[in-house]
Amino acid sequence: MAIKRLGRQTVRLSSCPSIAAAASVGGKKEGEGPLGKWFDHISEDPYFGHKTWEQAESAMLEHCFVLCCDKAKLSPSQLDYLFAGDLLNQCVGSTFASRRLPVPYFGVYGACSTMAESLSLAAMAVDGGFADAVCAMTSSHFCSAERQFRLPLEYGGQRTPTAQWTVTGAGALILTAEGPGPFVTHVTTGVIHDAGITDANNMGAAMAPAAYDTLKAHFEDTRRSPSDYSAIVTGDLGAVGHEILTDLFLRDGVDLGSASTDCGMLIYDSAAQDVHAGGSGCGCSASVLCGHILQRMARGEWSRVLFAATGALLSPTSSQQGESIPGICHAVVLDKQRG
Amino acid sequence: MAIKRLGRQTVRLSSCPSIAAAASVGGKKEGEGPLGKWFDHISEDPYFGHKTWEQAESAMLEHCFVLCCDKAKLSPSQLDYLFAGDLLNQCVGSTFASRRLPVPYFGVYGACSTMAESLSLAAMAVDGGFADAVCAMTSSHFCSAERQFRLPLEYGGQRTPTAQWTVTGAGALILTAEGPGPFVTHVTTGVIHDAGITDANNMGAAMAPAAYDTLKAHFEDTRRSPSDYSAIVTGDLGAVGHEILTDLFLRDGVDLGSASTDCGMLIYDSAAQDVHAGGSGCGCSASVLCGHILQRMARGEWSRVLFAATGALLSPTSSQQGESIPGICHAVVLDKQRG
Repeated sequence: MAIKRLGRQTVRLSSCPSIAAAASVGGKKEGEGPLGKWFDHISEDPYFGHKTWEQAESAMLEHCFVLCCDKAKLSPSQLDYLFAGDLLNQCVGSTFASRRLPVPYFGVYGACSTMAESLSLAAMAVDGGFADAVCAMTSSHFCSAERQFRLPLEYGGQRTPTAQWTVTGAGALILTAEGPGPFVTHVTTGVIHDAGITDANNMGAAMAPAAYDTLKAHFEDTRRSPSDYSAIVTGDLGAVGHEILTDLFLRDGVDLGSASTDCGMLIYDSAAQDVHAGGSGCGCSASVLCGHILQRMARGEWSRVLFAATGALLSPTSSQQGESIPGICHAVVLDKQRG
Repeated sequence: MAIKRLGRQTVRLSSCPSIAAAASVGGKKEGEGPLGKWFDHISEDPYFGHKTWEQAESAMLEHCFVLCCDKAKLSPSQLDYLFAGDLLNQCVGSTFASRRLPVPYFGVYGACSTMAESLSLAAMAVDGGFADAVCAMTSSHFCSAERQFRLPLEYGGQRTPTAQWTVTGAGALILTAEGPGPFVTHVTTGVIHDAGITDANNMGAAMAPAAYDTLKAHFEDTRRSPSDYSAIVTGDLGAVGHEILTDLFLRDGVDLGSASTDCGMLIYDSAAQDVHAGGSGCGCSASVLCGHILQRMARGEWSRVLFAATGALLSPTSSQQGESIPGICHAVVLDKQRG
């Protein structure tokens, strides 16, 4: 058994990489939401100065990367690795955002869990002695996602109450071997969980069992309980998925408590912004982490956060073929202290 | 500077994980090719017993995983991580193959370089002390890829001379901390390189500059030359891309020599099997590595191999929008000796 391994799904990092900087970029709707003030940049132009939604998403992510490097006072060529991915077919949001960057590139795909997955791998790359500075980033764009996964934007069909709204947003963060923190101390990696849900407009329900599995494994592996955290932030379960998650834990006699919240619930004012069950998309948990969560930690309001991003591993083709929706959840502990 | 880092793109592993087992599965055409005898299983049924091409690809990959575990004498629950990805939208080939597996899962996307990317990350996970046993795997299927990336199968359009044939194949390997080898000693991670090629039927040309970049970085970082390797196996540049790669090195006065070959050239008899420039797809380099290459090492014919899988990071949408095709290449050294 490798020495860093705490249990079946969790590793305890030994050097605990420090988050040197983080940046987030959002669209107009995200800027108008409750977390609007935490974004580094809000674009009023949904095209981000380009001609297509896909190019817009890449431009947004590239801008977010540049802002993050700037805040970390590192040039791209000082980064040892870049971990990135997104929801677009063949992850072109990330690859086109990165095609001018002189950084060794690992493409990842974790659907909306991508921020936690890329952060996990970035932390392991630094902690394993392979790198001194690594960037993890991801994005989603309402228009590119809606067109690809659901319906033409012009269609204007009615959305179901369980539907979530894909966030136009990007998040990037840079981990370094040395630094004042916050630190990444634990990584709990998800197992794919297929609960048999087939409704692509109810992804919260499809992902909640995966979030439950991963959080349960995390608490068992680390011998911690929900009360050990200032905040447990899943993402993007939305209101429906978060309620299911809470209920699954209550059946075990575990109260996740008031510290438990969800990126999909935080990013919009659900009623006022007409987003039904909340936000979704890789950019949801990414921009909430790189804005809201890390800034609350910087202000000293939160000292230890369990960030547990969730992903629905479907494709339009798999849904059309009647397949159910496998879910996954990766969790990462961010802590003011190294140990 | 992290101590394992040899240069801008290469790390020298300290413990050097051992390849405990590898397995490959192919379709009928692959079984009829020059490497047919190296596959663990050839399916005469392109549907692999299922109803759709996508389900067939997942079934093929899952079968390959099971064969690999069996050869390694490890149960899935003894694996610490699984790194997998594929060409299908949202990587459903891999996620649906893995949805019943009790293994912490990291999804990756490197297009046809996925085998080298997943192997790189698997090796780093073991070498970094995070895991004792890790599986890396990927797949492609001619029918699911052709339909998704090009044209309906029934269309039967004429293929250009530079076109490659997507391999129906899967490869899986398991790395362990201890073992008799062969060992993974070095990992050279690619930077995305966009050479401005826009012809999606000439991916060899789009990927060759990325292969050149990564191999050049590898030789510089390690202070090795092509003659230090029994074989340098790129994949899947095909005949056109491999000729460009050879030429790019000749311009530097470097002769890659007779040890240089390509998975896309090896897997088919190009003339007899009517595949034009050769094979392609994630399953191409994966099945050649997990069959041919590792078995030649096991027989003592090759002692040190530089495996450099290449990927074209396009999507149908990016091509339709007139974008060029970014390429990437990840290289891994497999060595009979640890040091």
